Amino acid sequence: MSDGTRPHQRRPLAIGLIGVGRLGRIYARDLSSRIAETRLVAIADPLTTLAQEVAEEFGVPRTYPDAYALIEDPAVEAVVIVSPTHSHRDLVIAAAGRGKPTFCEKPPALTLPDVAAMRAAIAHAGSFCQMGLMRRFDPGYASAKRQIESGRIGTPLVFKSTSRDPFPPSLEYADPASSGGLMIDMGIHDFDLARWFMGEVRTVAAIGGTIAYPELATVGDIDNAVASLTFVNGTIGAVDLSRSGIYGYDIATEILGLEGTLRVGYLRETPVMVLTRNSVAHDTVPYFMERFRDAYTLQLQNFARNVLDELPPPVTIDDGLEALRIGVAATRAQQTGMAVTVASV
Amino acid sequence: MSDGTRPHQRRPLAIGLIGVGRLGRIYARDLSSRIAETRLVAIADPLTTLAQEVAEEFGVPRTYPDAYALIEDPAVEAVVIVSPTHSHRDLVIAAAGRGKPTFCEKPPALTLPDVAAMRAAIAHAGSFCQMGLMRRFDPGYASAKRQIESGRIGTPLVFKSTSRDPFPPSLEYADPASSGGLMIDMGIHDFDLARWFMGEVRTVAAIGGTIAYPELATVGDIDNAVASLTFVNGTIGAVDLSRSGIYGYDIATEILGLEGTLRVGYLRETPVMVLTRNSVAHDTVPYFMERFRDAYTLQLQNFARNVLDELPPPVTIDDGLEALRIGVAATRAQQTGMAVTVASV
Amino acid sequence: MSDGTRPHQRRPLAIGLIGVGRLGRIYARDLSSRIAETRLVAIADPLTTLAQEVAEEFGVPRTYPDAYALIEDPAVEAVVIVSPTHSHRDLVIAAAGRGKPTFCEKPPALTLPDVAAMRAAIAHAGSFCQMGLMRRFDPGYASAKRQIESGRIGTPLVFKSTSRDPFPPSLEYADPASSGGLMIDMGIHDFDLARWFMGEVRTVAAIGGTIAYPELATVGDIDNAVASLTFVNGTIGAVDLSRSGIYGYDIATEILGLEGTLRVGYLRETPVMVLTRNSVAHDTVPYFMERFRDAYTLQLQNFARNVLDELPPPVTIDDGLEALRIGVAATRAQQTGMAVTVASV
Amino acid sequence: MSDGTRPHQRRPLAIGLIGVGRLGRIYARDLSSRIAETRLVAIADPLTTLAQEVAEEFGVPRTYPDAYALIEDPAVEAVVIVSPTHSHRDLVIAAAGRGKPTFCEKPPALTLPDVAAMRAAIAHAGSFCQMGLMRRFDPGYASAKRQIESGRIGTPLVFKSTSRDPFPPSLEYADPASSGGLMIDMGIHDFDLARWFMGEVRTVAAIGGTIAYPELATVGDIDNAVASLTFVNGTIGAVDLSRSGIYGYDIATEILGLEGTLRVGYLRETPVMVLTRNSVAHDTVPYFMERFRDAYTLQLQNFARNVLDELPPPVTIDDGLEALRIGVAATRAQQTGMAVTVASV
Repeated sequence: MSDGTRPHQRRPLAIGLIGVGRLGRIYARDLSSRIAETRLVAIADPLTTLAQEVAEEFGVPRTYPDAYALIEDPAVEAVVIVSPTHSHRDLVIAAAGRGKPTFCEKPPALTLPDVAAMRAAIAHAGSFCQMGLMRRFDPGYASAKRQIESGRIGTPLVFKSTSRDPFPPSLEYADPASSGGLMIDMGIHDFDLARWFMGEVRTVAAIGGTIAYPELATVGDIDNAVASLTFVNGTIGAVDLSRSGIYGYDIATEILGLEGTLRVGYLRETPVMVLTRNSVAHDTVPYFMERFRDAYTLQLQNFARNVLDELPPPVTIDDGLEALRIGVAATRAQQTGMAVTVASV
Repeated sequence: MSDGTRPHQRRPLAIGLIGVGRLGRIYARDLSSRIAETRLVAIADPLTTLAQEVAEEFGVPRTYPDAYALIEDPAVEAVVIVSPTHSHRDLVIAAAGRGKPTFCEKPPALTLPDVAAMRAAIAHAGSFCQMGLMRRFDPGYASAKRQIESGRIGTPLVFKSTSRDPFPPSLEYADPASSGGLMIDMGIHDFDLARWFMGEVRTVAAIGGTIAYPELATVGDIDNAVASLTFVNGTIGAVDLSRSGIYGYDIATEILGLEGTLRVGYLRETPVMVLTRNSVAHDTVPYFMERFRDAYTLQLQNFARNVLDELPPPVTIDDGLEALRIGVAATRAQQTGMAVTVASV
Repeated sequence: MSDGTRPHQRRPLAIGLIGVGRLGRIYARDLSSRIAETRLVAIADPLTTLAQEVAEEFGVPRTYPDAYALIEDPAVEAVVIVSPTHSHRDLVIAAAGRGKPTFCEKPPALTLPDVAAMRAAIAHAGSFCQMGLMRRFDPGYASAKRQIESGRIGTPLVFKSTSRDPFPPSLEYADPASSGGLMIDMGIHDFDLARWFMGEVRTVAAIGGTIAYPELATVGDIDNAVASLTFVNGTIGAVDLSRSGIYGYDIATEILGLEGTLRVGYLRETPVMVLTRNSVAHDTVPYFMERFRDAYTLQLQNFARNVLDELPPPVTIDDGLEALRIGVAATRAQQTGMAVTVASV
Repeated sequence: MSDGTRPHQRRPLAIGLIGVGRLGRIYARDLSSRIAETRLVAIADPLTTLAQEVAEEFGVPRTYPDAYALIEDPAVEAVVIVSPTHSHRDLVIAAAGRGKPTFCEKPPALTLPDVAAMRAAIAHAGSFCQMGLMRRFDPGYASAKRQIESGRIGTPLVFKSTSRDPFPPSLEYADPASSGGLMIDMGIHDFDLARWFMGEVRTVAAIGGTIAYPELATVGDIDNAVASLTFVNGTIGAVDLSRSGIYGYDIATEILGLEGTLRVGYLRETPVMVLTRNSVAHDTVPYFMERFRDAYTLQLQNFARNVLDELPPPVTIDDGLEALRIGVAATRAQQTGMAVTVASV
């Protein structure tokens, strides 16, 4: 993976990776072998067998069962946090306390006070913390952002975004106590895009329910929702979320501007069409790893370059805080049936 | 134009057409020359020069400045009403009083009491009145309906629909006093589809504003809106409407079901792609006449066949009433910022 | 059907239609009810019951078992010939002898001497004869032509065209003695486009065989073929033809120019997509009547207008002759395995 | 890069890479960091500064100006040859003599006797040599192959393939003395696909010329060509090649079968659509590295796995020989205007 520019002619950044679950494992591969600007020098995971297996696979010299020990490791120059969300707050605060540049996967935490605490610690330490919101690094979304900034579609007026998973999560994963629920777990990406493309959100209203997978109701999650957004600048938006995409993983966003419209997203994974009697068909994108494989890598590469070049993070804890705030507001709006002013939550 | 089946072996239905504006003129052509089951025997329009011009073009023997005189004409077996919305109520009631089968273009009227009066007159007379909601006759929408009924996508869960005009209406047209405003004028089609595909709507919430064309605010209309729908059966939906589509006329609907999804709509008008340096491009659908040309014809043909075969109308005044009711509710919801229970309006 | 311009303010042209088979019936509808510039006043077909049935359906006052009687009918101002190919020569010559403007469906005849005789008769009489090659009136092909003429893609360099039927013809139809065989029956359209877009063809080479439907070999036809073209101006082309398209009726043409490329054609008939587990699918164009419905109508309208306005035919007997000449050359090339100089046949 | 399966639990294969030009540099990255099964231990290139630069970038311990010295290096377990085509013969023979498994980029050589000599050396040594024809490893082409083998489209009847570069090569590169000319340099991929999907080619006829870039004529190359293929099993095909694609890099292949059709290829690079007044547009694939990035990596990974697992090469020197033979025949056919029997060259 490369963005096509020449690599930095310097020693790569020594990374400690916290968490090697589904996504963490992908990050391990990226940090160890696909990104020229990084070396993966340590892995922490309470599942020690898993940590050792991943370390062996990617030639990582050290593993820790305790993430705080990894943060203390002097060989670790920067920290990448992909552990479960509930652990983010204390880990980010600890890394900030050690002055180590940190990348933290979304969501920053599940409650606004937790993120406020993270924010305060980062500000106090004057340390570097980049939030993981990978869609901003997807070539499609990045192109849309550039085109909007260049005036290609005039003033953005309406934001629409759809996120769909092809199958429901496990009940354990879906439990809002750990995932934040549909509006936060899945919606945070769309709410972040909403802010990025349009500006701050003023109000959010939402409807939704457990209409596809009744079992999700047992843990208190919903599986389909529509959120309506009004922005501070007077423009409007709609986000629809589904855990019952069925046909595939489908992430699509549209920005309707005064002079044109941009659409980001695609449905076909393999470049082959099958034509049979009265039918033309193709496959779909299986899941987020296939859709955002390059975005994840580009995001980590961007993190490493920002640290090496002493640039500020392009996606900050504040971005994480504000996207979460919309998610919290959307959750409340869906539960109460009333529009919620985002600044009030 | 034909739906491919063999024409009726009988005398065509003698139609009187009321209103020969933009759409009325298209209907004149269809009724006089594209539909085997109809003859156009009379035209009424207060603009007598226009009426005579259209009559001459399509070989129509009689014209009337007064629509009621046309209804009285014994040569007129059935009435097609495409005059301005404010005239619909009295014309439908008059035609019902005469026992003449009537086709009435959407919206039935601008207020619910007006439609209730129409409904009562039709019921009292036991006469035939078919509402014009042409999307139901579009091959794409009709195919989607058939596929849903056949179980192709399982239980429908989420309804999404987008309507966009490529340019703003005249202020005269947009004036909610005559058009009903964006939610009724444009949204009635999407609200009708919502009912057709999903069932009755329970609540509607809406946001919107005059964000593209400030001049529309001078007559009290908005140009962009998003409405969220909850259905009586627990499913949900979103409709977004825009008078600033810019790129073209774009009507797109999606029904997400438990086992699959249907998408209706298309963007390209002419079957030619232009490939130039780093670009692949095609044109868009200019406007509603291009998009729904066949649907309009199939709808009138269906009307004529139903009358000739003494079948009940597949789209009734009640359908018009309920779609309007959602539009009225959506308008109120947008103006108050509160969700509105549709049955309460 | 209309091209959007206002109709001629004059008496429509009185047409006599010869042949009411598959395509003739469509022409009957167009001439009687979809084209403002024509009236259908007489039908000739040796199948008298069929002729009467069609006449009744479209309100045509007169039928003839004998096409020559129709040509003599003083009420017939212009003649449209859609009878079997073998009859074209004598009918065109008879109509020319009577000085009646004639539209003749492709191919003009099956042999070059026959067409030469037609050409001579037309020239001698100084009469009007327009060849039916409807693709030139398809909005996609017409747009491509205009864009090439406007310089949109620079000098055309390579021509590619594909024609595919979704199922094999009957043996009776396929018999080269009546159809001319694959290269003429189907290829004449692509060869005409080749000339229209690129200029005259210098040589043609071809391969092909009866590889899908062995039964076609019994009448001497082939079912798949590829023809390579060199043009007098030094450019090149390829045409592939198939009677085993299976998935649908597929007509696609590409012109590669020095500064860009044009592609004409499409596969989807109904504007609905079906998304099911790991699949996105849509239907295909069933057959030529669906694909070229508008082109056929626009072509006949153009014919009527040219006659009424005393304009020369845009598609002449010479165009038919030259397209046939390429078809004859391609047939010979396929049978001998040697490239054939078109001017030599 | 990964094909999703778990990596081999063993020591990676130590690779020596010969040639670090445009493609060689990509291979260096893949072999050193994207493929778990390989280590890159040595680089050879006569441009010593370049070799050292690439070695430094990817942490490769040794560089050689002389490729034969690299082959002799005992640390090199397997050899990857991406040097200019004229060097392939002797390098493959040398590597075979040393018994070192070899991957050789296409084309194997520019003359059939050269490839025959390579083939003989490999056979004599009983050594492993895998040809580089990366399209076979593209997910689209690989899927098409699997679907054909599974009977998805029935018996393949017609093969069509298009290759287009977006800009002309340098005269130095295009010179047939080094590139083999259009039919070999570019066509070898399509001819290989033809064999892979359809079986052996019996005859090839071809037309072509220097019609876009006259300067290419100065070195004796052509820039556009069409080749017609007949296969031993009676089926047919067409390949068109262009150095003047202009709009982008376009590789598209179609296999028409008795029961369906497969189409491989795509045009859009970035997943964003731009909709402006009456236009929908997207970008195109810039060049081969973007189109086949994954295929190149999967191909080298496949090579490493085959060597490690002692499996035979799936793409052999014979495959290279036969694809080249068709290219030589097509070149001769284009130059003589006569169809050429492939087995005769």
